[in-house]
Amino acid sequence: MATAQRQRAIAVDQLFHALGDPTRRKMLHRLGRGPQSVSRLAKPLGVTPTAIVHHLHVLEQSRLVRTAKAGRTRTCHIEPEGFLMLERWIRDQRALWESRLDRLGDILDEADD
Amino acid sequence: MATAQRQRAIAVDQLFHALGDPTRRKMLHRLGRGPQSVSRLAKPLGVTPTAIVHHLHVLEQSRLVRTAKAGRTRTCHIEPEGFLMLERWIRDQRALWESRLDRLGDILDEADD
Repeated sequence: MATAQRQRAIAVDQLFHALGDPTRRKMLHRLGRGPQSVSRLAKPLGVTPTAIVHHLHVLEQSRLVRTAKAGRTRTCHIEPEGFLMLERWIRDQRALWESRLDRLGDILDEADD
Repeated sequence: MATAQRQRAIAVDQLFHALGDPTRRKMLHRLGRGPQSVSRLAKPLGVTPTAIVHHLHVLEQSRLVRTAKAGRTRTCHIEPEGFLMLERWIRDQRALWESRLDRLGDILDEADD
């Protein structure tokens, strides 16, 4: 597999691993409403500070979230890049079926002629 | 949480659980090229027949795949419903940010006036 393709496969693996966890999806849902500090994000989720740091790390690795530190506060933001990658993955899947259906259509058209 | 909303949350959980596994994503990729029998689908994946049955069950539960038996052969097909649900999930996430960005834009426009 070419390097770029392999890197993309690893990125897709990371992305689906990140999204496979319901707590991480809740974090994304909350951040969709606006940036939040780590402590404010953690509060309603009922998870330990260690767990939230781990989840944020996974989300950052998958480019679904970015964090920025100002003074003593780390703020978390949605990072659209991971979402774009997910959309691209779906589009690639659809492209496979659709090209197959187009070919089937061509065969049926030829059979009609 | 209302029943319909709860059912949808469970369906989204199942969907991301299904997609979180690289073998299952490979199965979807192969089925995108056309329906296949269970044995043909299993062959290049190097997994046991028990594992493939489990993976198919998870994919069927998440409405990403459907299977149909004709005689002694079970054939697997892509089921678009799960993909539609995934697209809807992304759209809902985007709607959150975009409505927030629209509100921010309104505030900035008002500040300009």
